[in-house]
Amino acid sequence: MFMGVNSRERFLAAARCEDVDRAPIWIMRQAGRYLPEYRALRAKSSFRDMVRTPELAAEVTLQPMRRFGLDAAIVFSDILVVPEAMGLAYTLNEGEGIRMDFALEGARQVEALVSDESVVRERLAYVGEALRLARAELGQDRALLGFAGSPWTLACYMCEGAGARGGDFSRAKRMYYESPALFSLLMEKLSDVVATHLALQIEAGADAVQIFDSWAASCTGAHYGEMSLNWISRIISRLPPEVPVIVFAKGMAASHADSLAATGAQVLGVDWTCNLADLAERLPADLAVQGNLDPLLLEGEPAVVRREARALIKSMRGRKGHIVNLGHGIRPTARIDAVEALVQAVAEA
Amino acid sequence: MFMGVNSRERFLAAARCEDVDRAPIWIMRQAGRYLPEYRALRAKSSFRDMVRTPELAAEVTLQPMRRFGLDAAIVFSDILVVPEAMGLAYTLNEGEGIRMDFALEGARQVEALVSDESVVRERLAYVGEALRLARAELGQDRALLGFAGSPWTLACYMCEGAGARGGDFSRAKRMYYESPALFSLLMEKLSDVVATHLALQIEAGADAVQIFDSWAASCTGAHYGEMSLNWISRIISRLPPEVPVIVFAKGMAASHADSLAATGAQVLGVDWTCNLADLAERLPADLAVQGNLDPLLLEGEPAVVRREARALIKSMRGRKGHIVNLGHGIRPTARIDAVEALVQAVAEA
Repeated sequence: MFMGVNSRERFLAAARCEDVDRAPIWIMRQAGRYLPEYRALRAKSSFRDMVRTPELAAEVTLQPMRRFGLDAAIVFSDILVVPEAMGLAYTLNEGEGIRMDFALEGARQVEALVSDESVVRERLAYVGEALRLARAELGQDRALLGFAGSPWTLACYMCEGAGARGGDFSRAKRMYYESPALFSLLMEKLSDVVATHLALQIEAGADAVQIFDSWAASCTGAHYGEMSLNWISRIISRLPPEVPVIVFAKGMAASHADSLAATGAQVLGVDWTCNLADLAERLPADLAVQGNLDPLLLEGEPAVVRREARALIKSMRGRKGHIVNLGHGIRPTARIDAVEALVQAVAEA
Repeated sequence: MFMGVNSRERFLAAARCEDVDRAPIWIMRQAGRYLPEYRALRAKSSFRDMVRTPELAAEVTLQPMRRFGLDAAIVFSDILVVPEAMGLAYTLNEGEGIRMDFALEGARQVEALVSDESVVRERLAYVGEALRLARAELGQDRALLGFAGSPWTLACYMCEGAGARGGDFSRAKRMYYESPALFSLLMEKLSDVVATHLALQIEAGADAVQIFDSWAASCTGAHYGEMSLNWISRIISRLPPEVPVIVFAKGMAASHADSLAATGAQVLGVDWTCNLADLAERLPADLAVQGNLDPLLLEGEPAVVRREARALIKSMRGRKGHIVNLGHGIRPTARIDAVEALVQAVAEA
């Protein structure tokens, strides 16, 4: 029945809650610092150059695909290319974290942000080019994913002018509470640009796209719709319905599952804090789930990784619509043999 | 019908899901750095001295009770007094964070931890004394709370040898995955000592106690029982059943509500990421909830605080068993006028 199914078909079938021979697997941040070949490239180029040079981005995208039997590649890029295209650039120095060129505040700065579709398409064309180059080498048998940050998560960085510091993004929230009209203007612009960016990636060959609401949990539960989900819905409504959208709302999957499903997402990304099987049981049967192994496992013994991966898959009891992944990005300190053990355990499950 | 109800009766009635005239309120970390009178005391004494000197701890406990119409006081102490009593001391320098004297690893160090009840009672007697002094001044009309960290949360600090760094407590989790017998030994000892410590606080006059599972969300959903909840259950089973226990499991209330209820907790502490009314609707009617306003609100405009507090209370539609609180501790940068607005809005609701 499943003879000859390839990784791409497997991935898309799972995303659509159709029958599959086994759960597909990819790993968030799979093209990253835990790979020696990534570090070798990174030693010669800045992060920014790697992201902005299609040949380098495509090469990094493909690195984990050469090593591991992953079912999907995800384009090497960064969620902050969107604010950059809008006129708010950033620098990322590993170890030091993210620095935005300025912290967004006040109407004038929000109004000055670029959201014109043709300008955005031109400025982000390099991401499409990276996808095309990656696809050419990847072929048609494996899935290729695009992605973007959610408007809320991007607003967190833009208003703070910097990275996380423990997820304490107070300035975006203050704008929501105290300047609702300005907040809406910012979110409308961000939604437009994110929709354009995802459409551009789909046109360049992405089989599916993931929206990272990485700072979802800094929203309040009472206002998660207004702060974030409504804008994600708006984006999804502008994308071609046949392309699956994965929404990864870190810390919010269990508490806001119904609202997340209502965004139009076909796949719910789930972090490690949920019992995935319990959560899946109370979701609509046509909503797929993605996750949710502990990223920390990949820093430890391969035997433990195998045990936990098998237990996860067994707990799902063949539920249609499960894409295996971690509950968050793979860490730079992950072990190659642990990743191998994970991919093998999923292949054999 | 409610004529003459005092704060203590109101608090206890809400914790038991009985009729109340209005929801009671207290604020996590209400005795803290946002208060000028706290900072004045702190300028003259170390954090450790304030915690370990009953007169100072009682004074700090009472500071917010003099300023605000709060329904409950919580003893000024620290969750790390428990590891300290077990032989693993710590220092806390505000700004620098927590440093444990050593990072717990290996069987010998775990075995060396003190858990003998009489020794623990002697070493932690100062917490009971602080409660007695606070009660003498507080009187019988307002509730007085004791607290402790959960075994999991304490193990996080003890194994890491330090504080949070973004909640990335990998060492306790590695012990769970790779040395389960040693992990169990550590958790048994911690459960014994936490139970003793809470019993001691109840004997000293605490009307209710809160268990802080502050690092709950570093547990995996698949193993939250084994990592944390089973040990909380064990502790609660040893406490007098008439004393309400509040379990605050940050990041886990929505995803593990049923398991949290099964620990024997009478009150579920809820962080800001949940819609409290939605969550309360799917909980057993005899489980009270505590929370869950955004701590950030108290850094902003009092008018916004009032609006949000009223909206929270209205959303609960008079559900029995709601204790108003923040979704996490009040921040050092909170405004006094914002706290006043919160307490007043709750009193008038």
